[in-house]
Formats: sequence, C-alpha cells, structure tokens
Amino acid sequence: MGSAALQGDLEVSGGTSMAEPAVAERWPKFRRRKVLIQPWYQLRVAATILLFIVGYSLLLGFLMFYPLQQEFAATANPDQQFWIARQVLELHKRFWPAVLVVAVLVAAQSIFVTHRVVGPAYHIQRVMEGFAAGKYEMRARLRRWDRLKELEMAANAVGEALVQREMVRRERAGRLGAALAELKAGIGGTSVPTEVQQALVKMEGILAELPEPN
Amino acid sequence: MGSAALQGDLEVSGGTSMAEPAVAERWPKFRRRKVLIQPWYQLRVAATILLFIVGYSLLLGFLMFYPLQQEFAATANPDQQFWIARQVLELHKRFWPAVLVVAVLVAAQSIFVTHRVVGPAYHIQRVMEGFAAGKYEMRARLRRWDRLKELEMAANAVGEALVQREMVRRERAGRLGAALAELKAGIGGTSVPTEVQQALVKMEGILAELPEPN
Repeated sequence: MGSAALQGDLEVSGGTSMAEPAVAERWPKFRRRKVLIQPWYQLRVAATILLFIVGYSLLLGFLMFYPLQQEFAATANPDQQFWIARQVLELHKRFWPAVLVVAVLVAAQSIFVTHRVVGPAYHIQRVMEGFAAGKYEMRARLRRWDRLKELEMAANAVGEALVQREMVRRERAGRLGAALAELKAGIGGTSVPTEVQQALVKMEGILAELPEPN
Repeated sequence: MGSAALQGDLEVSGGTSMAEPAVAERWPKFRRRKVLIQPWYQLRVAATILLFIVGYSLLLGFLMFYPLQQEFAATANPDQQFWIARQVLELHKRFWPAVLVVAVLVAAQSIFVTHRVVGPAYHIQRVMEGFAAGKYEMRARLRRWDRLKELEMAANAVGEALVQREMVRRERAGRLGAALAELKAGIGGTSVPTEVQQALVKMEGILAELPEPN
C-alpha cells in the first residue's frame, strides 16, 4: 500500500482540500457516534448469538442431567434412587446460576466483538459507496478497538490514489487548455481553413467536459 | 448502489474486456481455494477463541465447585462431608466431559464464523489494493456462506464505476486526439506562426501521456 496508505491512515477528517464544500459538510453524517448503526442488523446478530448461547447451555444441561436420568430409570434400589434424586436437585441448584453467569459474559463479549466488526464494515461500505459515486475525498476513520483495520487502510489508500490521479488529470487538462489557448491566440491573426476553426471549437468543447461532475 | 453494484455482483471472473492480459492472468491468484489464507492471523484468532473457551469453561467449573468446597470446609459433620465429597467426585465425572463436548462445538462454530469474516475481509483488501494500484478490473467474488457481502458488493461497485469512468476518459482522449489530428491536417498547407506549431507539439505531447499506465 505504501505511502498512500499511510497518508490515508493519518488523515483525520473530511478528505483533501479538493473536496467540494457540500460533500465536506455532509461528511459528519458518517461519524460513528451511535451505538447501533444498523439497528435491525445488529439486533438480529445479537438475537442469533443469544439463541446459540441458550442452545449450548441447554446442550450442556442435557449432557449433565440425561445420564443421571438414565441411571435413575435403570435402578430399582430406593436408596440409590434417593441418592440420584438428591444429586439431581443439588445439581440443578448449582448448575443453572453458574451457566447464567457464564452465558451473560459470553453474550456480552460476543456482542462487543461482533459490533467491532459490523460497525467498521458498514462504515467502510459507506465510504466505498462514496467512491463509486465519485466522492474520492471520503475516508474511513479507525477507532481504537475496531476490527477490519487493514480493510479501512486499504479503502483509504484507494481514496488517496483516486484523489492523486484526479489531481494529475486536472493538471493535464489545465495544461491542454493553456496550450489550446496559445494555439488559438497564435492562429488569431492569420486566416486558417474552416476545418481548423471547427477542430478548435470541437477541442474546446471536449476540454470543457473534462472536469467531471464528481 | 444501483445497477453498477448489480453488474459487479453478477460478474464472474477477471473483470471487463479492458483488463490488460497480464492482470487477467494474475487474477486466478486471488481465487480462495486455500483454507488458511492468512495462516498466522487465522491461527492467532483460533488460539484466542480457544483461550476464551478454556477460560469460560474454567469459570463455569469454578462457579460450580467453589460453593461445594466452601460447604465442605464449613461443615464438621463426617456424614455431611462424605456426601459433599461424593457429590464433588460425581460432578467432576459428569461436568468436564459435558463441558468438553460443548467447548469443541463452540470452538468449531466460532472458528467457522470467524473464517467467514476474516477470509472475505482479506479478499476485499486485496481487491482494494488492486484498485489503489490502478487495477480497476479486479472484482471480489462472493462465496455462499461468506459474511461482509455488502462490503464485497460495494467494492465491486467501486471497480465498476472506475472502469466506466476510465472508458469515458479514454473515449474523450480519443476524440481530442482525432480533433487535434484534423486541426494539424488543416494547418498543414498554410504557413502559421511558430507559437502555433509549438502549441501543437505541446498538445500532442500531453495527449500522448493521457492513457495512464494503470
């Protein structure tokens, strides 16, 4: 990625000085202040995580209680049955609170980790949609604990490269325009064939198109 | 994202016909056949996941066994102590195998899910590095169960937009070149000032630069 990536990385705010003011003003919309950027998507992710945690907790419970249940059914000895029943009751009392504590911790961690991927992914997506729309001055901003940092750097490097190429193109268009003006001035005094006049007008027309409506 | 995104989505292989052959040949390198794309990174992720699973398992064990330990220490009644000791032994026998089963399942699922994010992220990163290097014909390919699909579509839409703009620019450069040739031909017969000749040479020089070395 080289120096362009580094530049992109260090860039703090609404892109280069090439940014149209309108875009620079719209930029703060992309600041990631909200906890839920895509509320429905993130709630769906959270629901899926909770579902899996409940599922795994129930599986763990099943793996622990089912053998006891089997032993209870297999034995006819009342003493043995009493011992198993007491064990089952004790186990329920100990097992579920412990599982609940761990489940809450795992859920919290999963949701935090997911959020650190989903948030940046959405943010980078917005930046790339900007690039596709010609807003090359948009940049992704890294937050300290976000994931996908390599991707954000790569996206910023793309923006940096596109801004650079755009500058080169504008500079070339400027030079072409200047040369065309010189040519026109030089021709001005002399009488030239109509084709030359037509070609001149045509070239001026094409050059007028050149700074694309980004 | 509009039609550009849809086009990008449907695109199967090495980009548009504008691709230089060399790039088109290099493209298959990005096919995601390998299980481990970034072996060290993915092994680190797997190690982190396993560490957390072991941690949570131990926490669960602690939450279950510590109260029994406390009860054992608090009582002086040998019958009670025998009952607790027997319960602890039984519990160890039931608890750890059950935890192991669930831990293996959770680890497998976590690693699969992570892989479906890390893989695409790396793939999209390579595509964006390509864009930054001017290889606009590169495209990300979606796999059925991959995550970050919105991001891949957005990246492809960027490529599509850049290819389109590049085409427009080449077409304009072609028209400018043609108009310049006409102008030159028109001037050819007549005698024009040196400035006009110089401007012509200058413009030809600038136009010769125009098709950028992507």
